[in-house]
Amino acid sequence: MNRIKINLDKKISRSYDLYIGKDIQDRATLLIARGNWAKRYFLITDTNVSDLYGSRVLDTFRSMGMPVEMITFPAGEASKTIHTAVAVAEELLGRGADRTSGLIALGGGVVGDLTGFIASIFMRGIPYLQFPTTLMAQVDSSIGGKTGVDLPMAKNMLGTFCQPKAVFTDVGFLKTLPVAEYMNGLAEIVKCAIIDDPGLLDLLEEQAVLLMNVGEPEPWVPIVTRACEIKKKIVEIDEKEQGLRRILNFGHTLGHAVEAEADYAIPHGEAVSMGMAGALNLSEKLGHLPVSDRERIMGFLQKAGLPVRIPGGLSTEGVISRMQRDKKKEGKVVHFVLLRRPGMPFVNGGVPESLIRETIEGLKR
Amino acid sequence: MNRIKINLDKKISRSYDLYIGKDIQDRATLLIARGNWAKRYFLITDTNVSDLYGSRVLDTFRSMGMPVEMITFPAGEASKTIHTAVAVAEELLGRGADRTSGLIALGGGVVGDLTGFIASIFMRGIPYLQFPTTLMAQVDSSIGGKTGVDLPMAKNMLGTFCQPKAVFTDVGFLKTLPVAEYMNGLAEIVKCAIIDDPGLLDLLEEQAVLLMNVGEPEPWVPIVTRACEIKKKIVEIDEKEQGLRRILNFGHTLGHAVEAEADYAIPHGEAVSMGMAGALNLSEKLGHLPVSDRERIMGFLQKAGLPVRIPGGLSTEGVISRMQRDKKKEGKVVHFVLLRRPGMPFVNGGVPESLIRETIEGLKR
Repeated sequence: MNRIKINLDKKISRSYDLYIGKDIQDRATLLIARGNWAKRYFLITDTNVSDLYGSRVLDTFRSMGMPVEMITFPAGEASKTIHTAVAVAEELLGRGADRTSGLIALGGGVVGDLTGFIASIFMRGIPYLQFPTTLMAQVDSSIGGKTGVDLPMAKNMLGTFCQPKAVFTDVGFLKTLPVAEYMNGLAEIVKCAIIDDPGLLDLLEEQAVLLMNVGEPEPWVPIVTRACEIKKKIVEIDEKEQGLRRILNFGHTLGHAVEAEADYAIPHGEAVSMGMAGALNLSEKLGHLPVSDRERIMGFLQKAGLPVRIPGGLSTEGVISRMQRDKKKEGKVVHFVLLRRPGMPFVNGGVPESLIRETIEGLKR
Repeated sequence: MNRIKINLDKKISRSYDLYIGKDIQDRATLLIARGNWAKRYFLITDTNVSDLYGSRVLDTFRSMGMPVEMITFPAGEASKTIHTAVAVAEELLGRGADRTSGLIALGGGVVGDLTGFIASIFMRGIPYLQFPTTLMAQVDSSIGGKTGVDLPMAKNMLGTFCQPKAVFTDVGFLKTLPVAEYMNGLAEIVKCAIIDDPGLLDLLEEQAVLLMNVGEPEPWVPIVTRACEIKKKIVEIDEKEQGLRRILNFGHTLGHAVEAEADYAIPHGEAVSMGMAGALNLSEKLGHLPVSDRERIMGFLQKAGLPVRIPGGLSTEGVISRMQRDKKKEGKVVHFVLLRRPGMPFVNGGVPESLIRETIEGLKR
């Protein structure tokens, strides 16, 4: 038997810059021109964002001489499928896109995940850029290169790790963000603060009133920047979610189960907030987290309008069995991310079921 | 505007071993156990290969304690679609596959490309191994990590560069290979010899009779090994087909156009052989290649049963316009890989259309 070693150990350059500011499209366009990542760009967005910003964004790009055209798909999680990905790919082909073309995602998580996925598989990979327009996408999905689409059986089943060439985070887009979307993003930011940056918790507490003034999104710049810095640090250490990146699941083990058991009638941000309340209670019950820390964070969640109680009508056993189904699926035990104190999370895989049940019941009272 | 740099420049380990021999499945199984790439494997194959080898391969794996089950899809290029990829992914999910599972491609190019593609997008990427069963897959598609599926509009439009964890090339599978499939692989091997290894041309000339004895594939071991070494060298230098790897297109510019113009009624290997004949004639006409070298290679192609004439009925203008359509699509000029002498190819982008026409007409006489 002959052996040939194919040597492909290489240093790969996948670093990129994330720019955060307000009304930064002009500067973004100059940076895109300088980046020279593609000869021609396709702006991928959904019908909601297109109605609000499509022509304005397109005009700005074009007025600065950038060759770009727009492809739109129907807004909503229901579009996050392989069928939409294929339809966009066929539209790209029909318009003459090739390996020298690039994509620009303009929108929230669905647009970003889908566009990143298409870019990672179109003609074996073309470059893409992100313009995240929701708070959630700005602090979460636009960092880390996770792309994907749902299958009918489960979410995010097909996808890649594929880093964008640059991310342009413009808080100007937040002006038109619905309140539920603010809450989704805020829950994510609070989570980042809890697991890695107690100072950000202080800042959030100080600025709470200012942040809720949706007409003027300027105060979000330092908050979003700081949340992105936390996410960046974790992603850099654990790009492919093999270890450390799991701490980003703080609040998500229970949160996902609640969200699914409620048949997605509870928005993601609210479910994560409930999940964080659960993780805080568990951390205290297991003797890891001081009462005062738990009370302080729970207090802030409530002040920010995020729920810390699970609806009484939701079946406790249903939630538990959903967590265990996930566990069986991964061939592993349920991992809870718990807290010793703000900034000190750890992964615990051995929480007794009775304590989980007690915690959920406690949150329903 | 704030700037955060996401640092992801890392040395990535994507090297892998390619093993070549006859009846090597036992040793392959031990190497897979040692590799420990996955907890559980799914053998992906098509109905043809499954009928011939499915249960034997499965039994051998299982008799050695390897946890593996089989998923089969209909044989043929028509299966190389996103729909098959999604169907296999759903079957994987239904059988409880997760991020700790791995795929094994058992088959020719379609099985390999499709399995590699599924592995690269299932749950954002799981490991895969290759057991190429056709000569073509053994010397070509199993090296280089090109995965993909076709779209109705064009071939290989969706795909990735994704390296397998190991490739096990067993010439034992060649016993049942149809003659047309031998020709496909042989054309590929001759191409490798022409562009990089004149010594392999000598070896092929010496062994021609032995190689055609399909009952005993042992003589293919050194030939396949040498062809793989050529491919390996090129892929290592140019993993993502940005420059050097283009020389692997020797014979393919014209070959692809002939294949398409004949509506795929001409097998790929024969079309490539015709394309190589065209490239050799062009190289000589342009004063790059000595007559004796052209005559020698043309002689060998004919001796090996590979065609060096284009069917008279095929439209010359049709072939030319197909080459130019590709050119427009890529926003570039037609690239011909030409030859100075065996082992010295170069990419020429400026062949006059009149000379291309004359060459095609010449091949039809």
